[in-house]
Amino acid sequence: MPLEIRKVLEKFLSLLIGLGSVFILDSLYPAKSPPFWRYICVDMRVTDNKKAHNTSSYKNTSLIVRRNKEFIIIIRFDRPFNNQQDNVHLEFMIGNSPDENKGTYITVSFGKEKRDGRWNGRVIGMQGNEVTVGITPDASCIIGRFRTFVTIVTDLGKQRTQRNPDIDLYVLFNAWDPGEDTDRQEYVMNDVGIIFNGEINNISSRAWNFGQFEKGVLDACLLVLDAGKVPLLYRGNAIEVVRQGSALINSQDDDGVLVGSWSGDYSTGTAPTAWTGSPEILLKYAKDGGLPVCFAQCWVFAGVLNTFMRCLGIPTRVVTNYCSAHDNTGNLKTDIILDEDGRVNRSRTRDSVWNYHSWNEVFMRRPDLPERFSGWQVIDCTPQETSDGLYRCGPTSVNAIRDGELSYPFDARFVFAEVRNMSMLFDVYLPSSDKYGNTKVINVDTTYVGKLLITKRMNSNAYEDITSAYKHPEGSLKERETMQMAERRGVSSRDYLPPAEAGVTIELQADTIKIGDNFKLTLNIKNQTRQTCTLSATITGCVVYYTGITSSIFKLDNKAYMPYLVEQSNLLFVVYGRIEENGKTLSTMRVVALRPPELTIKVTGTPRVGKDFMVTVSFRNPFNFILKNIQLRLESPGLITTKLKTYDHIAPGGSLQYTETITPQYPGKKVLIACLDCATVRQVTSQLEIFVQ
Amino acid sequence: MPLEIRKVLEKFLSLLIGLGSVFILDSLYPAKSPPFWRYICVDMRVTDNKKAHNTSSYKNTSLIVRRNKEFIIIIRFDRPFNNQQDNVHLEFMIGNSPDENKGTYITVSFGKEKRDGRWNGRVIGMQGNEVTVGITPDASCIIGRFRTFVTIVTDLGKQRTQRNPDIDLYVLFNAWDPGEDTDRQEYVMNDVGIIFNGEINNISSRAWNFGQFEKGVLDACLLVLDAGKVPLLYRGNAIEVVRQGSALINSQDDDGVLVGSWSGDYSTGTAPTAWTGSPEILLKYAKDGGLPVCFAQCWVFAGVLNTFMRCLGIPTRVVTNYCSAHDNTGNLKTDIILDEDGRVNRSRTRDSVWNYHSWNEVFMRRPDLPERFSGWQVIDCTPQETSDGLYRCGPTSVNAIRDGELSYPFDARFVFAEVRNMSMLFDVYLPSSDKYGNTKVINVDTTYVGKLLITKRMNSNAYEDITSAYKHPEGSLKERETMQMAERRGVSSRDYLPPAEAGVTIELQADTIKIGDNFKLTLNIKNQTRQTCTLSATITGCVVYYTGITSSIFKLDNKAYMPYLVEQSNLLFVVYGRIEENGKTLSTMRVVALRPPELTIKVTGTPRVGKDFMVTVSFRNPFNFILKNIQLRLESPGLITTKLKTYDHIAPGGSLQYTETITPQYPGKKVLIACLDCATVRQVTSQLEIFVQ
Repeated sequence: MPLEIRKVLEKFLSLLIGLGSVFILDSLYPAKSPPFWRYICVDMRVTDNKKAHNTSSYKNTSLIVRRNKEFIIIIRFDRPFNNQQDNVHLEFMIGNSPDENKGTYITVSFGKEKRDGRWNGRVIGMQGNEVTVGITPDASCIIGRFRTFVTIVTDLGKQRTQRNPDIDLYVLFNAWDPGEDTDRQEYVMNDVGIIFNGEINNISSRAWNFGQFEKGVLDACLLVLDAGKVPLLYRGNAIEVVRQGSALINSQDDDGVLVGSWSGDYSTGTAPTAWTGSPEILLKYAKDGGLPVCFAQCWVFAGVLNTFMRCLGIPTRVVTNYCSAHDNTGNLKTDIILDEDGRVNRSRTRDSVWNYHSWNEVFMRRPDLPERFSGWQVIDCTPQETSDGLYRCGPTSVNAIRDGELSYPFDARFVFAEVRNMSMLFDVYLPSSDKYGNTKVINVDTTYVGKLLITKRMNSNAYEDITSAYKHPEGSLKERETMQMAERRGVSSRDYLPPAEAGVTIELQADTIKIGDNFKLTLNIKNQTRQTCTLSATITGCVVYYTGITSSIFKLDNKAYMPYLVEQSNLLFVVYGRIEENGKTLSTMRVVALRPPELTIKVTGTPRVGKDFMVTVSFRNPFNFILKNIQLRLESPGLITTKLKTYDHIAPGGSLQYTETITPQYPGKKVLIACLDCATVRQVTSQLEIFVQ
Repeated sequence: MPLEIRKVLEKFLSLLIGLGSVFILDSLYPAKSPPFWRYICVDMRVTDNKKAHNTSSYKNTSLIVRRNKEFIIIIRFDRPFNNQQDNVHLEFMIGNSPDENKGTYITVSFGKEKRDGRWNGRVIGMQGNEVTVGITPDASCIIGRFRTFVTIVTDLGKQRTQRNPDIDLYVLFNAWDPGEDTDRQEYVMNDVGIIFNGEINNISSRAWNFGQFEKGVLDACLLVLDAGKVPLLYRGNAIEVVRQGSALINSQDDDGVLVGSWSGDYSTGTAPTAWTGSPEILLKYAKDGGLPVCFAQCWVFAGVLNTFMRCLGIPTRVVTNYCSAHDNTGNLKTDIILDEDGRVNRSRTRDSVWNYHSWNEVFMRRPDLPERFSGWQVIDCTPQETSDGLYRCGPTSVNAIRDGELSYPFDARFVFAEVRNMSMLFDVYLPSSDKYGNTKVINVDTTYVGKLLITKRMNSNAYEDITSAYKHPEGSLKERETMQMAERRGVSSRDYLPPAEAGVTIELQADTIKIGDNFKLTLNIKNQTRQTCTLSATITGCVVYYTGITSSIFKLDNKAYMPYLVEQSNLLFVVYGRIEENGKTLSTMRVVALRPPELTIKVTGTPRVGKDFMVTVSFRNPFNFILKNIQLRLESPGLITTKLKTYDHIAPGGSLQYTETITPQYPGKKVLIACLDCATVRQVTSQLEIFVQ
């Protein structure tokens, strides 16, 4: 029988019988005597199994299960099943060369010849022509999309059903396994979240649509593994999948999902600040056949990696570290180099302290390490430094970071430096030095870095302070022990000695302001000696990116900072002073955060399933200059996919309003996320929670 | 003054003064008043420093020092040096953007303005116009070739000498540091060695010219790091250099030095068996501008990696592991799959047990790990499996392998499996199975793998058994503890249970034979039950590569194995039997090693420095077939570079003789290494020690 005719016939029979996918067996033509069946019918019981496996949310018609938990399927024959005579294999295959030894070819047999394979199988019930079978993928099973086949074995030979994608089976990691005890509702099931940003004195946040259940996202995540050539063998090992994921979400080395850019010019793609969620990015990546998507910065990387992990079933959260050291030199010291005027020397300062940096934590057992290192693990896909040859970072145990146990894989040293950089240095040029100039340490601050680590609180949009998970309290015995342990593990922390105390302290104070507003800068000077001191000081103001990289330096006598601003910029003030009596130098710095203008979301009507209501996003240009090439995004997981509107310009003082009519399909809490973006004003975001009745 | 004229003049002055490299300072034209000098002269005291730093053997005219040890240079001015007024900097730079913070720009100052830098400097003496300076590169200094400059600082400005390669400085790792206590004479200084091969019942060996001191080899090794884009920052860290080295000596991923091939067709390059040493390979790689050299197998990889490490100053040795498991599947089990006739199924057997596998050990401190893991570390550059994305392996502590401490970096699990594979399985097809067939475990041998690990003994060509460094005695309490520890670190060893005892044991016995000879194969059968047993058994003979991969299967009734042979082949006999009374199956296997024909080296005359003597290499074709396209190599480190002769053919029973006249330049013990190679006969090698008076 030609394949096409068989398929049409099978489809027809499926509709006729209405109990699952029908497969006609070759034995029907020519007819053979029993015990051959002429057709079998496979019911994957998608709805019930998905409910039991916490996978109902996936917008995907196939069966999706979590490994190490039984799922139930029903096979219906065209005559009663005989447990003593009939011999049936259910087969699951993944990849191009399925092999039982590699776990890419799985057999579950029942009936006459019952054998034990990797996956446990049992007959739960027989009734009439129907057999109900329970199958449990083993706890270390490869995750991904398996093709399902049924094979009938008789003394005369065997028959396997043709491939039918309708009965494909997705297997995911199982965060519901014992030993994986964390809040699954928040860290696996929540498809919307908050990513914190801003500056330590001005913590702000933006909503993010993780959208791990959106249509096509699961297939896109599996494509990431395929495009990254992650061997199937490794896909049963969560540690490997997590590490590969941290490499594959950035495009460096491996043409992964997102291209990082901090250039300020994003005209060839979408600005990192303009995105509102992961599905738009992952679906674009999949649609373009694995072409990297432009552009991302840390929160975009963290947002997409969060989606990837939650989608595959691994508990994940986004963490933001304020004053995050980026130690380019791998020496666990951050060197900020000033020139003779006290200004940050941009060409010689290679390390930086980011105002904030967002990464991810995954919750997992680490069977490869001593038990105390299971639990939350840092992973980071923002391309900062290569780890063993590729841009990736982690998984590294948060407990190991806290206790200075830096020997264990992966990348504990780098993360340790991000949160607890030994010495924050201000080096200065000696005026006599030449282009290979020498520097002198003028200030060492061991507490500046890793000041605060936060993540979204469970069932709330507020933040949870998790600093103590990464660091014992400053000055405590445990913290001293951590530093000693880190030194025993090869961290040489103490080769720069802090200079002698100057006897005078200086401190800068300033408020957070709305972008464009005036503000007051206060320099507090305290003389702790009994002598009179004469201090000559220079204050330099410069514009810094969130990565701590300085952009333009502006003149304080001019006092107009607006023309110098860059995206997501803050103002950095550095004071460099010298006490004339004893020649001692001192310095301090302070970031002044600039709050972006506001974006408003309003709802008209009561959101009900099946009824229209309206959402209006509005914005007023508060500046005395024109805003050009504006992108406005609106999305809401489970409610609407990303809507993108572009506007040519908004005049000074001018406004825009965008209204969308929405018809909800599912009830429950929803989050509307909006973002306005243009080259001169970034990070204009807003979110609104609504309840669909 | 034009640069060319200055250079000629400086050269002329150098010859005239005869005390080092002369540099004319700009101040000479136009003449300025003192304290400016008009010329300075730098004497790197190459001979004395090299002697003190154990680097005299390098055939390289520049100064080569080992870090963390003082070297002495003399600077001669054209007037007396004044300690109170004069201000001189010695500067050492490496790479394109020298930077003091990165350790790529080093200043050592003396005279008026003495400052502390990374490298310690001191004035040892002043006499007339000469200043003797002692300089100590710091213990974590970057290794490589530094450019040396002298800068004179006065109130009027500063002057730096022009670049002159004659005063370049090579800095190497220092195995003479305290805490690096191993036999430096053998593991750093010995430039010739023995690599063991063959089969556990027939251990053989070949001499290898490491030649780390040969002209051009040091620059070639540094080129390997440059071509592999190893950041300069990492080149002060021995762990990084060792790990990168294990990746860069193979060409996979990174266009490294050697292309691995086990194909049997080496017509597009040199057969792995034909090489006699590393310098020929490294110099070809350098001459071709970093183009990978064809071809290598494990002993070639290990030989070149040994040269690379010893050349850079890291103690290294070659280790051979007999019955080395290559666990493709990462499951710490080796599956040998037989088909229904008892023959090895080549398409389904992916794991293999190599007759032998050679890797390297480096001796180093591991400041990143707990102290007990310092000492010998395994590294392996034969491309077997990727480690964290690239083909490389190690460094992994031998102590950690012995104790099952598999959490620490790098690649402990893979090496653990090579020497202590849990289960050596013989699986068989069930006759009823189809192409996705099922297998049944018929034999599990937990002792087959990693039977013997050996390395060249110090000051001897015999081997040293180092198995106990890798494994506690089989059956000991410590070995049980090791396995428990490994299981706690995630090694799941026990999921295949060995089948019940059959009550009958079988064992194959055979002798090692010369290739082409007849031999006797004995099958010992022992019935340990009190019943009569009927055994039906199949014996299959096949030809195997040293990698354990089977080639042709030959018929035992034919009894002629010669037509089936492949390079370095051995004969593998597999017995698969079945006891009719109880249906139990049993199996065993045995490798019969084939000894290659002999090659003879003879010396005529007494080797004396400056006098000619003659070396004759001879070979007789013992076979009844013609040998074609023969390569003959002869080399001897410190005596002659590689001589390569090619011969069109040798008739059956025919001979060849090759004579070379040699004039020794240095006295002492020398080793002559010869190798004959053609497609049908491989591994025909010989060596001869001579003493040059």
